[in-house]
Amino acid sequence: MPRRLLLLLLLALSLVASASAVPAVIRMVPDDPTAASSGAVDDADSLFCDSWRLSVETANAGPWLAVPARCGDFVRDYMEGPRYASDSAVAAADALAFASDSLAAAAEWGGSASARPAWVFDVDETLLSNAPYYAVNGWGKSIAIVLAFPLIFSRSLEFNETSFDEWADAAKAPTLPPSLNLYNQLQGLGFHIILLTGRIEFQRNATESNLLSAGYNSWEKLILRQPSDIGKTAVQYKSERRAAMEAEGFKILGNSGDQWSDLIGSPMATRSFKLPNPMYFIS
Amino acid sequence: MPRRLLLLLLLALSLVASASAVPAVIRMVPDDPTAASSGAVDDADSLFCDSWRLSVETANAGPWLAVPARCGDFVRDYMEGPRYASDSAVAAADALAFASDSLAAAAEWGGSASARPAWVFDVDETLLSNAPYYAVNGWGKSIAIVLAFPLIFSRSLEFNETSFDEWADAAKAPTLPPSLNLYNQLQGLGFHIILLTGRIEFQRNATESNLLSAGYNSWEKLILRQPSDIGKTAVQYKSERRAAMEAEGFKILGNSGDQWSDLIGSPMATRSFKLPNPMYFIS
Repeated sequence: MPRRLLLLLLLALSLVASASAVPAVIRMVPDDPTAASSGAVDDADSLFCDSWRLSVETANAGPWLAVPARCGDFVRDYMEGPRYASDSAVAAADALAFASDSLAAAAEWGGSASARPAWVFDVDETLLSNAPYYAVNGWGKSIAIVLAFPLIFSRSLEFNETSFDEWADAAKAPTLPPSLNLYNQLQGLGFHIILLTGRIEFQRNATESNLLSAGYNSWEKLILRQPSDIGKTAVQYKSERRAAMEAEGFKILGNSGDQWSDLIGSPMATRSFKLPNPMYFIS
Repeated sequence: MPRRLLLLLLLALSLVASASAVPAVIRMVPDDPTAASSGAVDDADSLFCDSWRLSVETANAGPWLAVPARCGDFVRDYMEGPRYASDSAVAAADALAFASDSLAAAAEWGGSASARPAWVFDVDETLLSNAPYYAVNGWGKSIAIVLAFPLIFSRSLEFNETSFDEWADAAKAPTLPPSLNLYNQLQGLGFHIILLTGRIEFQRNATESNLLSAGYNSWEKLILRQPSDIGKTAVQYKSERRAAMEAEGFKILGNSGDQWSDLIGSPMATRSFKLPNPMYFIS
């Protein structure tokens, strides 16, 4: 892996350089004035951006409109390096550990024998990764445009951006491997899998096609926004659908999503699992 | 800072070594067989432990009993290095940004003119840091003993451990500077400050003394566990007290705590802020 080695070496040199107070910022494209943020992430930025990322993942940051300008490189490195994969894998392992225990507990107590155990998954950045789209279109850059309408922002707005529409319609988003493994294990355990996405009904065929080609199958339902859902926040829309599932006799034991708006709101799953996403925010 | 430089250099070398597939783990005490985990954190451990830490901070991990054995060094480095300070500072900045906005919004809408705006703070690892105690007693090691009673665990159990009792009674826990700054700014904005801790009433004098010497003053209330609260989970105890505050006419706009059990449960604050704590878990 010579490229990864080079990146690590640059990072290492950058750390040492900044620690020894040499005012050096090592850039991989030092002569390109338009590439001011394309170099190795420096130590201070890395420290701040890692804290910013934590604030996003814990919801401390609240609603946010764009990746901070100084953190574009950090987000790229995070998403393209081993950290995103590792964080996703640990989130899936946490979910799987709970899933086994929760079924065992339900069987032991026998309380809800008639309820069908269900697991809810979001789609984008949960089952499928749009990272290839953002790698081409700028980590966080296009998002700033998408999120220029904070008061009325909903997932559907993203689909007004032609390039993302084209990406989604192409149905080539790759799988998130830890999520695919979790998905298959949950099916093996007997969970009913319900997919609840902010994508609109118009995207059903492309979404189904992409999910199938990414390795997912045999879901119980794929729920997309209907015309009557446009304008609702994700929290409102998704909470309403979870309530409907429970009314149908599903017991939602687990819920996996990359946005807190996938997870909060009443009714909540018994346990919710926040997958990492430092690229964009949906309220 | 020669020691910090040395650590960074060791980390850098360790990164490069593992990336080039040399099976080298650089240890600072290589000849001490009992110090197997006292060296620089290696790349794979660092990657896993950082993901583990995220899973704790997002509550994905659920209840946990001890820092994973391979992550002891990671937690030490995190707590003693710049990352804990940076994460704490960003959490406080998020809280302050919300605090200003929330008061402005309340004033504009005029909806709850009669309610007194309040901010709730936990104490340990929120206003005061017990890191010096854990630095001496082992990052995560003593915690495993404390948490050996998961079913009946409550904060008060920690005080059954003599050495932590002695530490708390000594009232020498240092301040968390970003929290002190937030505390003072909130008072300046007109917030009523309510301190809600899992410490027991018996610790009131030591706690007050420690808070004062750490720079905190003029709180509205300092609420500690009463005998009737022993055995309640932190979620139950703290939710009951938040409900009582609201019944008294406080509007809890913000809540800062290092445990999710400080923050969740009904009623919740308008916004909750999770401070970092990879050292221990309280349900």
